[in-house]
Amino acid sequence: MRDTYGVRKRTVAILGASGTVGQRFIALLASHPWFEIAALTTSDAKAGKRFGDVTAWHFAADMPDGIANMKLQATRDDIDAEVCFSALPPDAAAQWEAALAKTGHHVFSNVKTHREDADVPLIIAEVNPDHAAALEVQRKKRGWSGSIVTNGNCSAITFALAAAPLHKTFGIEKVVVSTMQAVSGAGYPGVPSLDAIDNVIPFIGEEEEKMERETKKFLGSWDGKAFADADFAFSAHCNRVPVRDGHTETVSLSLRGDPSVDEVMDTMRTFRGKPQELRLPTAPQCPVIVRAERDRPQPIRDRDAGKGMSVVVGRVREDPVLGYKYVVLGHNTIRGAAGASVLNAELLAAEERI
Amino acid sequence: MRDTYGVRKRTVAILGASGTVGQRFIALLASHPWFEIAALTTSDAKAGKRFGDVTAWHFAADMPDGIANMKLQATRDDIDAEVCFSALPPDAAAQWEAALAKTGHHVFSNVKTHREDADVPLIIAEVNPDHAAALEVQRKKRGWSGSIVTNGNCSAITFALAAAPLHKTFGIEKVVVSTMQAVSGAGYPGVPSLDAIDNVIPFIGEEEEKMERETKKFLGSWDGKAFADADFAFSAHCNRVPVRDGHTETVSLSLRGDPSVDEVMDTMRTFRGKPQELRLPTAPQCPVIVRAERDRPQPIRDRDAGKGMSVVVGRVREDPVLGYKYVVLGHNTIRGAAGASVLNAELLAAEERI
Amino acid sequence: MRDTYGVRKRTVAILGASGTVGQRFIALLASHPWFEIAALTTSDAKAGKRFGDVTAWHFAADMPDGIANMKLQATRDDIDAEVCFSALPPDAAAQWEAALAKTGHHVFSNVKTHREDADVPLIIAEVNPDHAAALEVQRKKRGWSGSIVTNGNCSAITFALAAAPLHKTFGIEKVVVSTMQAVSGAGYPGVPSLDAIDNVIPFIGEEEEKMERETKKFLGSWDGKAFADADFAFSAHCNRVPVRDGHTETVSLSLRGDPSVDEVMDTMRTFRGKPQELRLPTAPQCPVIVRAERDRPQPIRDRDAGKGMSVVVGRVREDPVLGYKYVVLGHNTIRGAAGASVLNAELLAAEERI
Amino acid sequence: MRDTYGVRKRTVAILGASGTVGQRFIALLASHPWFEIAALTTSDAKAGKRFGDVTAWHFAADMPDGIANMKLQATRDDIDAEVCFSALPPDAAAQWEAALAKTGHHVFSNVKTHREDADVPLIIAEVNPDHAAALEVQRKKRGWSGSIVTNGNCSAITFALAAAPLHKTFGIEKVVVSTMQAVSGAGYPGVPSLDAIDNVIPFIGEEEEKMERETKKFLGSWDGKAFADADFAFSAHCNRVPVRDGHTETVSLSLRGDPSVDEVMDTMRTFRGKPQELRLPTAPQCPVIVRAERDRPQPIRDRDAGKGMSVVVGRVREDPVLGYKYVVLGHNTIRGAAGASVLNAELLAAEERI
Repeated sequence: MRDTYGVRKRTVAILGASGTVGQRFIALLASHPWFEIAALTTSDAKAGKRFGDVTAWHFAADMPDGIANMKLQATRDDIDAEVCFSALPPDAAAQWEAALAKTGHHVFSNVKTHREDADVPLIIAEVNPDHAAALEVQRKKRGWSGSIVTNGNCSAITFALAAAPLHKTFGIEKVVVSTMQAVSGAGYPGVPSLDAIDNVIPFIGEEEEKMERETKKFLGSWDGKAFADADFAFSAHCNRVPVRDGHTETVSLSLRGDPSVDEVMDTMRTFRGKPQELRLPTAPQCPVIVRAERDRPQPIRDRDAGKGMSVVVGRVREDPVLGYKYVVLGHNTIRGAAGASVLNAELLAAEERI
Repeated sequence: MRDTYGVRKRTVAILGASGTVGQRFIALLASHPWFEIAALTTSDAKAGKRFGDVTAWHFAADMPDGIANMKLQATRDDIDAEVCFSALPPDAAAQWEAALAKTGHHVFSNVKTHREDADVPLIIAEVNPDHAAALEVQRKKRGWSGSIVTNGNCSAITFALAAAPLHKTFGIEKVVVSTMQAVSGAGYPGVPSLDAIDNVIPFIGEEEEKMERETKKFLGSWDGKAFADADFAFSAHCNRVPVRDGHTETVSLSLRGDPSVDEVMDTMRTFRGKPQELRLPTAPQCPVIVRAERDRPQPIRDRDAGKGMSVVVGRVREDPVLGYKYVVLGHNTIRGAAGASVLNAELLAAEERI
Repeated sequence: MRDTYGVRKRTVAILGASGTVGQRFIALLASHPWFEIAALTTSDAKAGKRFGDVTAWHFAADMPDGIANMKLQATRDDIDAEVCFSALPPDAAAQWEAALAKTGHHVFSNVKTHREDADVPLIIAEVNPDHAAALEVQRKKRGWSGSIVTNGNCSAITFALAAAPLHKTFGIEKVVVSTMQAVSGAGYPGVPSLDAIDNVIPFIGEEEEKMERETKKFLGSWDGKAFADADFAFSAHCNRVPVRDGHTETVSLSLRGDPSVDEVMDTMRTFRGKPQELRLPTAPQCPVIVRAERDRPQPIRDRDAGKGMSVVVGRVREDPVLGYKYVVLGHNTIRGAAGASVLNAELLAAEERI
Repeated sequence: MRDTYGVRKRTVAILGASGTVGQRFIALLASHPWFEIAALTTSDAKAGKRFGDVTAWHFAADMPDGIANMKLQATRDDIDAEVCFSALPPDAAAQWEAALAKTGHHVFSNVKTHREDADVPLIIAEVNPDHAAALEVQRKKRGWSGSIVTNGNCSAITFALAAAPLHKTFGIEKVVVSTMQAVSGAGYPGVPSLDAIDNVIPFIGEEEEKMERETKKFLGSWDGKAFADADFAFSAHCNRVPVRDGHTETVSLSLRGDPSVDEVMDTMRTFRGKPQELRLPTAPQCPVIVRAERDRPQPIRDRDAGKGMSVVVGRVREDPVLGYKYVVLGHNTIRGAAGASVLNAELLAAEERI
């Protein structure tokens, strides 16, 4: 059966379904036109139980109908689903993602485990959809009938989506970014409230390293055989602030070619990618929204822009040190996690790569 | 009468006593060995009333004994006090600070009004105590028997106090700083809770400009006739976060001479200034505390270091773009406001400049 | 023109449109099937300006299309609209609401000014729709062609909507309620963040008195000539907590007739009123949702139930002192303010009382 | 050796030293005139390690000198210390507290395990110091040379300390209390920030039951053979709010004898107990502070009253249902936990019961 887009319906499994990212996957996929939730997996300890009985639902609305009654399965490599969205803990991801790809599943992973593998594409659907071509090498080399595609870390995606049009148009030379990240980025239970209320934690384990490496892979290239990192200097300061959802990042950067501030803003504002061209179900109309108010973006007011799939930029201006500066905000568990995976899967489904 | 330091007791007035900074002045001066609170001033509307009747005390402990019963005076130029600590609104500061200096008062102002005047020193007592020599020019040129000394903006003081030893020892070339500032920096009522809870505001009016200009004046020089700004490129991103007290700042900077990270840390850690040398009553033992933990400084745990008069630095490390990076935190209403003024007054009293 | 419900379209004005409740009215009415926004009013100072130029929009989504370009009018008694939704400050309400009713407007007011008037109905559409009959007396006695209908205070509505089925079915004898109210209840700028972060304020001006008097009027009767208060003892403790939206209330109460806890829960759960019967556009399917989880309702998870028009009850159990206890939560600016007014207007329009 | 009070110095151990309450014990005992920290215990897993290496210190100031270097011991019954302050997890408390008492240690426990035992006193030093007489029965019956004394739950202590003078003077008949409890009450990591920010949790496991039972034991009597509970009806609603420290409780209660509101306030304000009489080191001057402001007590402003050992009462007024109502606030980890144990130990040391 094919829907109005001409894309056939696929069964999907959500791996690690009861965590915060797993729940976001459920919320995004519960009434998806192309994907049908066929399985929810979890640790062996919870397997066999009813999802609704063992999961505290973190979101405002109730669990989607039907989900509460699904029986949780232990994560295994013979799951009965074509596509797997992975929100597994790193250990379980190391154990099962490759095994599932080997047995023919198309795994879209939000986990860091395979992000830096030489034959695993790390994709933001608007930014580097061409990296999906690496799947041919991946399958051939590994003897897989399935595949693994990863999306990146929430803070890296937020940065890279807004910076991509600047890199494509002008070329980035240097970046200093300082983040103010929401507590949901650490999952549940995640950040203790005694560390969050009336406080800032100026450190997030491995986050600065991930931001640097992933940004360079996102904005880098695939030459048919290997990925080449983008070539610029990148420095991140990663901080946790008492915000529920939405990562805010202040960015100072230098660009080649001396564009005006207006050119910089126009370049971001008019950026569109394949998801917009193909009108993918989860694609926001505008991936990078540029606001004119002097005090935006703000988590409360902007994190749900484009149903959480747009990033919002504000305060684009000159920087006395690096040339340009601005603020960018993205919804960390939607655009920065589950939504990014779903969009990648939609892209590859529409292109018939999976 | 002279105290154990050989410094005679002076009567002081607090101008604008009922606001958050005015209250901090009261808390710091209530049992001060050199200064005796003789007058509290306010707007004409509240003048004549008992302080305790018209002031909501913002701090944990009760108002100091005796303060609640003091009668508020309208701000005028004939206040009966030698030293005036000013927490006036900008308009009132413009009207009264110079008038008070003319009539022989020594005004230590926390207000921005005169900070950039060519003959008004902007002082952090440990950083540029020699700028106090400008008072001779000030008095002569303006025909004043009194004087005006200013301290700076809270975010500028926090940055400059930690950066001063680096600038003195190595020389700063470029700085990119991103702040996460507490709501108390905006006074009371200040930031509405609907803008603060679960939110970040990536803009504070004039703050970035003030940080740049004041930092350059603090780290600049006085040649006997004029101030010369320090010569480096400076870029600030100023943000408000849901924290009560304590500004956290991420700093990336380049230094001359290629010091090691250990040298950078040692330089900050061992920095001492005149306040420490003279053992001024409000001087912290250590103006810049450098912590080794990977997740410090934090507002909750570090803002009260040195009774709020130390700044706390952490995460000193290499920066791929500018060379060095670290996090610095200061108590914005103590070291960043009232405490800075009091320390300046102690310094000038100890040096018999006032 | 009549819509599918057979209710003709009416033009409406929002009085005091730029405040938090005014903005909620706009959000609720922007695409309403029966009401068409024809005018936005404000203080004389802002009149003549474009709404979008003078209003900081408080909500996540952008201002509805078309609203930003509307020109604000000064509040006057000749507004060109049939129905007026009032979110005026109390002074302006005192000046204009009666004047507008006199000139033929039907005023639905969220303001306290006329709530206790002997001929002004105070209505929760599900609870006491029969009080609307008082409009006949009101018009006759005052010589008005229009009318004033009020809704109540947010904390009173939340309590009364959940308690109404209990009072109707069993009869309430005594109530002790303690509230934990959101900061949005105080409007904007409202509660300073220095009073909110890491704090509780155990006092809200006039709130306890309003809760008591309004609850008794809501649950009381109209005998054709006068309102009679419900007859029970009522005690409220009103507290402000660091929550953006959603008032949580703990309730202990005694009921006549010794019902079981299950009967109490069923009575609340199965309660329906005229808005449900008439399928009014803003009516929630279920006005009182009763949850079984032991840790619900919670603001984050339950305030948007029924698009903010349901109240959510949990933890119904025996009380060793008064017989029964539970927790109830309502969205204070939707069900507790703007949404309540809109539902009242829908009810009176459907019944052709306006 | 006896100090100025004539009380000899005792060695003490802190059981479960690395948790939030354990750390409070350290902070309170680090420079105590009568007690000298001789041992810190922990789970077997951490035993042998340096305290400073395995403990994240939760408080503003640094760890007391000397403590960081102490070696953690596994909890055993042969600890070399006369007095043991227990902040053990319940399981470990069940295993070790009685064993330690058997081997001659005097255990002052903050844990719930033995609070309801028929021969274990549950003491607030100002409220029921006479219950310490039960230790004779305890030792005799159990054949112990040591002893166990417990303090209560934080919310129960806060309530009972303020209510005790009312019960002693007038007699309490009925109480309805609703709490707004700080997150530190749940320890560390405790409440996840996703449950705390912008939220209220209207449920705390077993808390309402503990409040009821412990309050009745505190305010009850010891007749030489057994404890008899106080005889009144008690109902609690326990809620978690986004506050770091300080439990706020709204109280409605009925008293015998129809006292005036002024009599009620005077009775609380003038209440003093044995700790005040004996001038115990940790005793606050005034156990119950009654404030006149209409918006107090508040956590931010009042939790540190009496160094956290006073409770603060405000808004004492008539209650239409039960007669009287007020708000009370106590510091949950000082007066409500570690400080209460220390004061109990001081009392028994001064009375030479241990």
